[in-house]
Amino acid sequence: MKHSQYRKLEDVLGCKWSVSVLVAIAGGVQRPGALERSIPGLSTKVLSERLRKLEAFGLIEKTVHDSSPPRTDYTLTNHGRKVVNIVEQVRSLDEELREVARKA
Amino acid sequence: MKHSQYRKLEDVLGCKWSVSVLVAIAGGVQRPGALERSIPGLSTKVLSERLRKLEAFGLIEKTVHDSSPPRTDYTLTNHGRKVVNIVEQVRSLDEELREVARKA
Repeated sequence: MKHSQYRKLEDVLGCKWSVSVLVAIAGGVQRPGALERSIPGLSTKVLSERLRKLEAFGLIEKTVHDSSPPRTDYTLTNHGRKVVNIVEQVRSLDEELREVARKA
Repeated sequence: MKHSQYRKLEDVLGCKWSVSVLVAIAGGVQRPGALERSIPGLSTKVLSERLRKLEAFGLIEKTVHDSSPPRTDYTLTNHGRKVVNIVEQVRSLDEELREVARKA
């Protein structure tokens, strides 16, 4: 893991692709092809960039399995799980506020 | 409270002034003048806008006290407290990640 190009966590949370990738991995989608298919509009290029950044950031871990052909998958680190937990709180609170707005 | 111009919670979290105002109110700074002084770079105009938006969003409540001259102060609603709690988690996790990056 390289942490050299450290950017703020807010930048990750502010990127809809990064958030979608983290949430998908949390939901058990772990291979690059499956991630790409599960997130509408996400291109292979942007997915690769996001995966590299999230790994450099210490939020996901890449495992290359020694199979033929080699199989790559991604899992969340503890920090990644905390980020997903925060994302879920934001979504749930947003839903509550939307509900209040609808009733007003 | 008007909730008519509903925007997403992400917009609040993505606005540094809104976040600063919520955190300051959470820390006990409740009057407009005190808020303006406690947040470097925040203008009276932007503060008024943010206060109006945060109130419309249901995150803060305005109280006008029947004194002479009338005194206005702001407090967090339950939803506002949840937002501040999320902001604190983001900051604390960001600090942890920064620590990991320093050691790498």
